[in-house]
Amino acid sequence: MQVWNDYLSQNKQRFLDELLDLLRIPSVSADSKYKNDVARCAEAVKENLLKAGCDKAEICPTEGHPIVYGEKIIDASLPTVLVYGHYDVQPADPLELWHSGPFEPVIKDGKIFARGACDDKGQMFMHVKALEVMVKTNTLACNVKFMIEGEEEVGSSNLGKFLASNVEKLKADIVLVSDTSMISMEHPSLETGLRGLAYMEVEVTGPNRDLHSGVYGGAVANPINILCKMIASLHDENNHITIPGFYDKVDNLSDADRTALNAAPFNQKEYNEDLGVKSEWGEKGYTTLERTGTRPTLDVNGIWGGYIGEGAKTVLPSKANAKISMRLVPHQSSEEISAMFQKHFESIAPDYVQVKVTAHHGGEPVVTPTDSVAYQAAAKAIKESFGKDPIPTRGGGSIPIIALFEKTLGLKTVLMGFGLDNDNIHSPNEKYDVANYYKGIETIPYFHKYFAEMSK
Amino acid sequence: MQVWNDYLSQNKQRFLDELLDLLRIPSVSADSKYKNDVARCAEAVKENLLKAGCDKAEICPTEGHPIVYGEKIIDASLPTVLVYGHYDVQPADPLELWHSGPFEPVIKDGKIFARGACDDKGQMFMHVKALEVMVKTNTLACNVKFMIEGEEEVGSSNLGKFLASNVEKLKADIVLVSDTSMISMEHPSLETGLRGLAYMEVEVTGPNRDLHSGVYGGAVANPINILCKMIASLHDENNHITIPGFYDKVDNLSDADRTALNAAPFNQKEYNEDLGVKSEWGEKGYTTLERTGTRPTLDVNGIWGGYIGEGAKTVLPSKANAKISMRLVPHQSSEEISAMFQKHFESIAPDYVQVKVTAHHGGEPVVTPTDSVAYQAAAKAIKESFGKDPIPTRGGGSIPIIALFEKTLGLKTVLMGFGLDNDNIHSPNEKYDVANYYKGIETIPYFHKYFAEMSK
Repeated sequence: MQVWNDYLSQNKQRFLDELLDLLRIPSVSADSKYKNDVARCAEAVKENLLKAGCDKAEICPTEGHPIVYGEKIIDASLPTVLVYGHYDVQPADPLELWHSGPFEPVIKDGKIFARGACDDKGQMFMHVKALEVMVKTNTLACNVKFMIEGEEEVGSSNLGKFLASNVEKLKADIVLVSDTSMISMEHPSLETGLRGLAYMEVEVTGPNRDLHSGVYGGAVANPINILCKMIASLHDENNHITIPGFYDKVDNLSDADRTALNAAPFNQKEYNEDLGVKSEWGEKGYTTLERTGTRPTLDVNGIWGGYIGEGAKTVLPSKANAKISMRLVPHQSSEEISAMFQKHFESIAPDYVQVKVTAHHGGEPVVTPTDSVAYQAAAKAIKESFGKDPIPTRGGGSIPIIALFEKTLGLKTVLMGFGLDNDNIHSPNEKYDVANYYKGIETIPYFHKYFAEMSK
Repeated sequence: MQVWNDYLSQNKQRFLDELLDLLRIPSVSADSKYKNDVARCAEAVKENLLKAGCDKAEICPTEGHPIVYGEKIIDASLPTVLVYGHYDVQPADPLELWHSGPFEPVIKDGKIFARGACDDKGQMFMHVKALEVMVKTNTLACNVKFMIEGEEEVGSSNLGKFLASNVEKLKADIVLVSDTSMISMEHPSLETGLRGLAYMEVEVTGPNRDLHSGVYGGAVANPINILCKMIASLHDENNHITIPGFYDKVDNLSDADRTALNAAPFNQKEYNEDLGVKSEWGEKGYTTLERTGTRPTLDVNGIWGGYIGEGAKTVLPSKANAKISMRLVPHQSSEEISAMFQKHFESIAPDYVQVKVTAHHGGEPVVTPTDSVAYQAAAKAIKESFGKDPIPTRGGGSIPIIALFEKTLGLKTVLMGFGLDNDNIHSPNEKYDVANYYKGIETIPYFHKYFAEMSK
């Protein structure tokens, strides 16, 4: 609508500057040394919500990092949109690979470079600015509630409790989330599903102390060698995961589903070139889009053991550790899979080592219905701002909280993400295109408009 | 001899204090940030050599850390003993496992706890103090030369050049080294062989940047998973090393050799209990003494990749690295094995990753003859101070330089070590028993005495 575009163009620079201020706060939730910065960031989000037109905004303490809640209620008879997002970010390391400071945002070639630029400060903040646009132009069509958490990157461990004890306060008709990506500006898309997550940490202990690899080598199990053997055994020659029962609940896609899924524009050659790999890797019998969208995975996210400093040390270490996560697809339960992994990993441990398996956060996979009013409203909003219908896709990432919304609040979710796969989220040089940021702010009001109209 | 015992008992405390001073210098050769400490330690060794009675002592600069040379020439017609040792030490990490500061030596239960207490400052310094005993009691029976280097823990990379350009200065009849261990104070032993070493570093690169394991997981090779698979493949189900040609030059022990070797007092149950392992591990068909003394090995000394910080990060990393070393037995060449490893490791790399293999320092295996005058003199010296004949053993460790002595100087070596396998060398809480330190100082003069007599 003209009035929106006018307001947006009059405030373009400020909208950008306010986001950059937020990106300057190193709100890394995984690392306790950033605790105060995370708290500072929550405060900033609250202030921005009030500034944008919320009648009320508050910091809700949890056992971990706080949740920011805000609301703008205009008419009880109108539908209510609950906007979910997160203000915490992934750790920035490896720092040496960043071209500019992860928390000193710079704009280069129309891209905002900073940790959190896309995931999720940039995308979350579009909703704050969109609210301002609608409030200041008196065009708000729905009641709006904001729930912006600070623990998404560490498993939203305290959000479930918050939901359960605030069912009334969070009452809404739909959850709207921008924390995913679309194919491209030329091919806008809407995600209709997300993978779940089970994240484990393992420790393999051999001898009770570090040993001299010359004096003991060859006569004592080396925990690093053993851990490598154990990890290697978790995939078979077709890159299927070997954990017994792992695939029991995984749906086999219908030919129709596969055709639809693979209809999305995708070029394997460009994909490989972008990643700098000679060839792709994955579960035999599936395409890349199927592998990332519809198949479960097992990846080692981190491994360490022995001497990793400069030079050479001839040590036969006492311990070796790894962080191993699995992406889950519909019907797989994070808890079940975590238990399966633990049981299996313990069962394959030879008796000359000891293993300890612990579970980090997990999350359930979700599928969002395309026939719902909310999805249709989102599709129409995108058609309005992009000039073409969105392509329904399946995302490979996880937003553990989505399943909880349905379970605890009985709410469906619309995943209206404006990120791009090459935004380097969770990587050095994370970026978010300025154009996508503005496009999001332009699109969101249409969602509220159509959701209100179509809900009548 | 009485005169030696008297002098030793009169100076016991000072001999110990002087060693502790040396142990306070963090001469870690592998880590460049200790460069000045290493230089300081060389200076201290030089001062101690002069103090002990050397006519001459000097610091010999190299491209790396300096070599300390000292000599006491009494009579050109007498045999000359070249004492080799090293003043550099292994890195102290993991620091958190030390009960006291690695460079703040403490004496507890008759043991000196400090990095380098045994390997090799403590053992090297016995020769300095033994020289003092002989000089001050006018009983020196041989000319003595000292060559104490500062790069043994990083492969003695500059010692070869030093030997080649100082053949005349280093002229001697035998090399005497205390840098190995014996079975126990009740079972003194002399090592008749040492394993060689090939030390490699590998880097596996998958995608050209760290990726989000949700967005890309399952469709891109994870370099950690691949590295684990590659490492796992380096041993077969019998724990034989799978590198083609690896065993080609390895001798098969005769039944007689095996019987002799296994005659040394050894208790597998106590060995396992000491290490806290339920059962031993190793190459099928060999005993623990055979595995550590006569068989080559492959151990991962360090591995790292991805996120290894606190909490969870869902990253699919770009790179994974490992430090891998192999212990070699007679006839295996460090250079040949390094080349074999590189060729093999590159050959097993799947085309969706890139591998880089580099070689750190290596060293050749050695066998010392038991029928030589020098070995017989050492055996007699031990019989004198311990009251029983030493048991000939094969050591699992490596002193790369021994092979060089023979090649460059044409000198045989006697390995008269007074350490114990539980001295935690290369581990946290390295220690050296005060009793062993004094026993070494007591034994060494007998070696000089008998070597002079038997050389006549």
